[in-house]
Amino acid sequence: MIYGIPKTYFFVSGFSEGYTRLNAFDGALLNAGIGNTNLVKVSSIIPPHSKEIRPIELPQGALVPTAYAYVSSNIPGEVISAAVAIALPTNEDQPGLIMEYTAQGHREEIELIARNMAREGMSMREQEVKEIKSISAEYKVKKIGAAFAAVILWQ
Amino acid sequence: MIYGIPKTYFFVSGFSEGYTRLNAFDGALLNAGIGNTNLVKVSSIIPPHSKEIRPIELPQGALVPTAYAYVSSNIPGEVISAAVAIALPTNEDQPGLIMEYTAQGHREEIELIARNMAREGMSMREQEVKEIKSISAEYKVKKIGAAFAAVILWQ
Amino acid sequence: MIYGIPKTYFFVSGFSEGYTRLNAFDGALLNAGIGNTNLVKVSSIIPPHSKEIRPIELPQGALVPTAYAYVSSNIPGEVISAAVAIALPTNEDQPGLIMEYTAQGHREEIELIARNMAREGMSMREQEVKEIKSISAEYKVKKIGAAFAAVILWQ
Repeated sequence: MIYGIPKTYFFVSGFSEGYTRLNAFDGALLNAGIGNTNLVKVSSIIPPHSKEIRPIELPQGALVPTAYAYVSSNIPGEVISAAVAIALPTNEDQPGLIMEYTAQGHREEIELIARNMAREGMSMREQEVKEIKSISAEYKVKKIGAAFAAVILWQ
Repeated sequence: MIYGIPKTYFFVSGFSEGYTRLNAFDGALLNAGIGNTNLVKVSSIIPPHSKEIRPIELPQGALVPTAYAYVSSNIPGEVISAAVAIALPTNEDQPGLIMEYTAQGHREEIELIARNMAREGMSMREQEVKEIKSISAEYKVKKIGAAFAAVILWQ
Repeated sequence: MIYGIPKTYFFVSGFSEGYTRLNAFDGALLNAGIGNTNLVKVSSIIPPHSKEIRPIELPQGALVPTAYAYVSSNIPGEVISAAVAIALPTNEDQPGLIMEYTAQGHREEIELIARNMAREGMSMREQEVKEIKSISAEYKVKKIGAAFAAVILWQ
């Protein structure tokens, strides 16, 4: 059901050059291993007791709830990065929080900002942080490029 | 099923300061009481015979179809508002329409525009309006802030 | 289930004048025959063995996964167009790809670009193209207008 609660999650990231920005986005999804699914963008919670799994091959054309960060550029030589971070609380009956961040620049800095955002969101919830996890992608644009990072929420 | 038809709905609104715009959005969701769910943005119909309920505590991490208005700003002192309005038709076999509006300015004006938009949508459907309902949130930004108003479509 | 896989699809397109940009969007959906549903935007795959059907009347208020292109303008006299294209592979066990494109200008050119984008996406997948299908809408703005083209993913 759309009202269902995801039971597992995994991280993916990718980058690509493309014929247009949307083709670059598509290419980044392919590079991330999820290019043949229908992403449904969500804001951005890890349900309590949801388990991280290794990336799996999703059914082709499936509707897939995803929290994602995406950036594209058509400036040759520009470096772009996308990152997502998860903050998980010590209290395992509470949900985790996913944050997304993108910018020009290198992945280390962009990923750090996403991690800080996730930590800050736990602080707003007055939850102690057990762990922060994150992933990022960086791309130096040739003509038109994209970078993408995501948390897939799976059943 | 994603193809399912929501049976109930309720209004929420909120506002927040935040570390980044996305944290302010997250804070506004928390302030609205839905910060621990996965919102799925939809365009924007109240199914016929769907009933308004009081806001309920949604399951943590659930996928929640939502029509929402969201605005953020990083201009200290700026006043921002978000509103959603529903127009319900006299003919109860016809759907209601949700409209969203955001702008700088005070909630009364922004909410009135959302209400006019919903009324106008019923007029495009050649449906007589039985009732207009709405909600809004206003926020005066300190450093980075957000305002949020939504109709949750529930089962 | 949100994780379900759409089994059929159909094309729609429409355009409208409106009281605001969102009303013009709503009007374009009405003009396209899907104005009384809750569109859930997806990125953008035709599952293998999914069948094209003629446009059907969708249940009012249903949650409907849709790949769509949307453009609006408030410049009187401006011509705007929206197009979606599908590329289907020769290998029917592989998915098709939906691409969206919008711009100022006439539908023939915009639709051609969407078709080229879809072809390019098949090329990135190293899949031979069996067929390209597309639809578009064009609108000349009076005060505020919108054009819309979509592929509805249905059960």
